[in-house]
Amino acid sequence: MKLFSSVNDVTDINALVAEALKLKQNPYANQDLGKNKTLGLVFLNPSLRTRMSTQKAALNLGMNVMVLNMDKEGWALELQDGAIMNGSSVEHIREAAAVLGQYVDIIGVRSFPGLKNRAEDYNEEVFNKFVKYCGVPVVSLESATRHPLQSLADLVTIEELKTKPRPKVVLTWAPHIKLLPQAVPNSFAEWMCKADVDFTIAHPKGYELNTDFTQGATITHNQDEALAGADFIYVKNWSAYEPYGKVLPGNEDWMLTNKKLGITDNAKVMHCLPVRRNLELSDEILDGPNSLVVHEAGNRVWAAQAVLKTMLESL
Amino acid sequence: MKLFSSVNDVTDINALVAEALKLKQNPYANQDLGKNKTLGLVFLNPSLRTRMSTQKAALNLGMNVMVLNMDKEGWALELQDGAIMNGSSVEHIREAAAVLGQYVDIIGVRSFPGLKNRAEDYNEEVFNKFVKYCGVPVVSLESATRHPLQSLADLVTIEELKTKPRPKVVLTWAPHIKLLPQAVPNSFAEWMCKADVDFTIAHPKGYELNTDFTQGATITHNQDEALAGADFIYVKNWSAYEPYGKVLPGNEDWMLTNKKLGITDNAKVMHCLPVRRNLELSDEILDGPNSLVVHEAGNRVWAAQAVLKTMLESL
Amino acid sequence: MKLFSSVNDVTDINALVAEALKLKQNPYANQDLGKNKTLGLVFLNPSLRTRMSTQKAALNLGMNVMVLNMDKEGWALELQDGAIMNGSSVEHIREAAAVLGQYVDIIGVRSFPGLKNRAEDYNEEVFNKFVKYCGVPVVSLESATRHPLQSLADLVTIEELKTKPRPKVVLTWAPHIKLLPQAVPNSFAEWMCKADVDFTIAHPKGYELNTDFTQGATITHNQDEALAGADFIYVKNWSAYEPYGKVLPGNEDWMLTNKKLGITDNAKVMHCLPVRRNLELSDEILDGPNSLVVHEAGNRVWAAQAVLKTMLESL
Repeated sequence: MKLFSSVNDVTDINALVAEALKLKQNPYANQDLGKNKTLGLVFLNPSLRTRMSTQKAALNLGMNVMVLNMDKEGWALELQDGAIMNGSSVEHIREAAAVLGQYVDIIGVRSFPGLKNRAEDYNEEVFNKFVKYCGVPVVSLESATRHPLQSLADLVTIEELKTKPRPKVVLTWAPHIKLLPQAVPNSFAEWMCKADVDFTIAHPKGYELNTDFTQGATITHNQDEALAGADFIYVKNWSAYEPYGKVLPGNEDWMLTNKKLGITDNAKVMHCLPVRRNLELSDEILDGPNSLVVHEAGNRVWAAQAVLKTMLESL
Repeated sequence: MKLFSSVNDVTDINALVAEALKLKQNPYANQDLGKNKTLGLVFLNPSLRTRMSTQKAALNLGMNVMVLNMDKEGWALELQDGAIMNGSSVEHIREAAAVLGQYVDIIGVRSFPGLKNRAEDYNEEVFNKFVKYCGVPVVSLESATRHPLQSLADLVTIEELKTKPRPKVVLTWAPHIKLLPQAVPNSFAEWMCKADVDFTIAHPKGYELNTDFTQGATITHNQDEALAGADFIYVKNWSAYEPYGKVLPGNEDWMLTNKKLGITDNAKVMHCLPVRRNLELSDEILDGPNSLVVHEAGNRVWAAQAVLKTMLESL
Repeated sequence: MKLFSSVNDVTDINALVAEALKLKQNPYANQDLGKNKTLGLVFLNPSLRTRMSTQKAALNLGMNVMVLNMDKEGWALELQDGAIMNGSSVEHIREAAAVLGQYVDIIGVRSFPGLKNRAEDYNEEVFNKFVKYCGVPVVSLESATRHPLQSLADLVTIEELKTKPRPKVVLTWAPHIKLLPQAVPNSFAEWMCKADVDFTIAHPKGYELNTDFTQGATITHNQDEALAGADFIYVKNWSAYEPYGKVLPGNEDWMLTNKKLGITDNAKVMHCLPVRRNLELSDEILDGPNSLVVHEAGNRVWAAQAVLKTMLESL
């Protein structure tokens, strides 16, 4: 594997999930593979879980890790081809990516969307230019439209904890006060659509995701209907795809509570974190027995380690 | 040891000091202990000595280290239980701490006081919530009211360099222009009160420390009287405990000079650093033969290594 | 070698270049040398290439690396001797440097010039105080007036790729919109003047470099004349030395283009990066077959590794 940016980069998602769960049982068995190999983690945006879990995964594999907070420690990047660079950007992504590719064996890149220009975001201009110019394998640490390490960890969590062969999984929109990307729901949807689960998406009218990510999913605007009989509920806010990057008024009653949980089949509750308590998810759920959010975050290590191991094997 | 937040977490301070001095002689002897173990250092505030010395201590023990500048690289933390998170904080400390505990074996946390609400600071709300929710052993990298790695290094330094069995140690207040916490003097006092030293605290009226930390110490407002016959002088500014977080006018003449040093028994001069030259301590002392400040900072490594080694042994 | 701050610190530059090229062939052969040795990288300014390539070099040698962004993670430094520190600076460089020297075996320091006071910059006050007070070997990661790791990598690149025994190397000034230091051109000039090359410097009137760095170079204001027959062209902007730190109007036509490249002997084009496209260097050159900028940046690893190896051998 030379690129991990979406579910489409994975030949066999079941095998990758199985690998992650195997690594969880035996984290340090592959340190010869990573010896004298270096992972570069490049952040254009903040990160806690991805930053720490991906480092840990690389260390488990015996790799070295170098972290670059590009926005704070490096130089302001120019993205436009042909630009006359007489403004505030100091270095073109062509050089920055190519140079980083000289120093590391695998690069992880985080680059959030601007949420202003849909075409630019959905073309993944920053991430794709990084991939194009760096010349080494690249792992997405969340790009404008996807967060595949998160989705893999989510699927690992579902596989690890499911109590029936084909669980019902519901992605349900949640309220928020900020403008959030569609990356996590897009990515979760495209992974669930390929996984052996019964997958439903519930959201208020106007929050339809790009249909490229939701082929095969049941989609409803009725949250109660979606929750009925659910085994896993994935709670997440996102801004509208059309009109792009908008927050629609209302819908505060979409916050998941214990009462709504009562409709489900004692569903486990997931969230990618960070979560705004009592806005997206109530305290009672987050502190209750059905919450998987910390366990799920823990599985980020094994997801990243499975991806890095696969990449190391193909270097 | 599962927690290192104050002298009260240490069963035998003499044994811990002896361990630190032993590690100083043989820093790399315990690398099997730290193999595949990870230390996470979480900074909510700036740090130079603690950041570097604790990393070095962990590396000496064969550990991996991951550093997180929470304030700059992660997300703004919510501390209040029950908060409806519709403001500027992005992640609750409950999740942040619990998630970090998934990725590391030991966590170090630095969290300064706000110096506005005494009860909140002295309840150690941030530090204690981190301990409560992270689920792994925690080392204080300086909390609102204590800096135990500093105090252990200070005691190591005194034990290493004392020339009589029970030296006279004086903590003396120094002038400053900023509002500083009481963490270092509190901590130094509680360690000295348990150590085999003759301990005196000198400060202007109004700078009385919380008496929980000073049981057994001689306390005076007469600096000259305190300095007479001293073997070690610990210079430090702090703001008032009552009224909380205030700086009282005057007292500029409390800065230690060579003239005042003449009253002592050729005392060695200590300071936790950073120090404001010619405000807290004169150039002549810092650049003179009696200053221990750099040596003392060097001992931070062995203090941290003794604590981490003890924690690794109890994992 | 205890100090690497200029070409004058190197006994035999040809041997150092040969060492770098040998390490490029066999990067991991010297890991016993770096075992339990720690490199501290201290940044007072941003850095991408230097940050990453020097880390990588140290890791290749089996060293541990600790990075400190002094400006963001540590404390504001006071540089003046005798200062009464009652302003915004929190720690004197005397203590900061001395303390860091307690934690690491070799220190790298980056400190840009202020470009306001020439004497202060050319006295290298920050860098030299760091060297004076830290007590361990120091590598310059670019100081006010020199960038020797860059220049060594540049010479390594020329030696690696030259097709005649004594190539013609031209340093040519390029337009910019910001006020840039003279460190890279100074340093490149002093290295080329000692190397076995035919060295010419071309710049508009008013951009004369300090002659301490250019002894033996041919200097011209006629760019075309300089480019004629060139084998390597080193493109770089700098601000004036006299009057210090000024940008003179005009000279936009000094940007290197393919047309100008036609005058040369099919010269290879070098730049230290970051480069402002279509201001300093045209897209057509950077994306064309004559550009060495990425390859040259890659060689930063081997330059740093040769220097660190030499230092480790003399610890």
